[in-house]
Amino acid sequence: MATHFYTASSLDGFIATDQHSLDWLLKQDIDAEGPMSYGAFEKTIGALAMGASTYNWVMQHEEGRWGYEQPTWVFTHRELEIPVGADVRKAQGDVTAVHSEMVTAAGGSDLWVVGGGDLAGQFADAGLLDEVWVQYAPVTLGSGAPLLPRMLDLELLEVARNRNFMCGRYRVRRG
Amino acid sequence: MATHFYTASSLDGFIATDQHSLDWLLKQDIDAEGPMSYGAFEKTIGALAMGASTYNWVMQHEEGRWGYEQPTWVFTHRELEIPVGADVRKAQGDVTAVHSEMVTAAGGSDLWVVGGGDLAGQFADAGLLDEVWVQYAPVTLGSGAPLLPRMLDLELLEVARNRNFMCGRYRVRRG
Repeated sequence: MATHFYTASSLDGFIATDQHSLDWLLKQDIDAEGPMSYGAFEKTIGALAMGASTYNWVMQHEEGRWGYEQPTWVFTHRELEIPVGADVRKAQGDVTAVHSEMVTAAGGSDLWVVGGGDLAGQFADAGLLDEVWVQYAPVTLGSGAPLLPRMLDLELLEVARNRNFMCGRYRVRRG
Repeated sequence: MATHFYTASSLDGFIATDQHSLDWLLKQDIDAEGPMSYGAFEKTIGALAMGASTYNWVMQHEEGRWGYEQPTWVFTHRELEIPVGADVRKAQGDVTAVHSEMVTAAGGSDLWVVGGGDLAGQFADAGLLDEVWVQYAPVTLGSGAPLLPRMLDLELLEVARNRNFMCGRYRVRRG
């Protein structure tokens, strides 16, 4: 069982603009079944965690349809509007207890920290982040939401090109 | 003739720490003659441009030996200490006039903007930056000197792995 931060980023390390836009990302061409793509990755995942900004983005862009079958923990201090039929659970505070709940719910499958970068950083702080996957879109943004605002040493496991994207998979080095 | 920004970066888009350190980079393994490496790139270059921070870093780490045979323009408002025998020229203000001097000096070879990110951005602002090459080291820094603090659209030309590094080469899209 492994916990992954799987995300897209600009070349300069931003996962969204300051206005929470992903337009720069969604206009890019990617093969959804190609190298290091979402299709194969998502099949390995048994539970999800995301922050409030990520959840709000999904809610605003999914038009009421919830796209994930796996149980999802949303870290937020606000009220949580949950789509009908979605297995979405409110989470708060330390990630360690939530991680434990996620492991149980995932039943041996892997865990996915969807975003944002600081939440992935909190899992790393707790020694609970195993892999970082980044699909770099061919843009620079100059500012925005940071990819992973921590000092971390990683090990490069895999490099691939998927159409417009340069994709890397990394193991988080502990200690 | 093309103008390149060729640089290493952390995964989160920093080319140096807040204290101008490259220790996180220099400890990484790279094949100097391998894919997208410095060895082959440097042979194509006829003139260099760099900012004051980059120049100061080089001066502090080269121990008096200047490593470049090509003429080098250093953008600075400060006094410039130039090593004996080095073809280093002080530059100020708009990059366009300096670019023109560099083109003449390079005699048909390419130009290299060594760093920092904002200087590369100034060349991009002036429509004078053709390619961006990034070697991503397997670390995140969380903060530091930004890779390329601009909003730019690029085209992915080439992806390679060189030992610990994921390397991408991009064409700058204009307009």
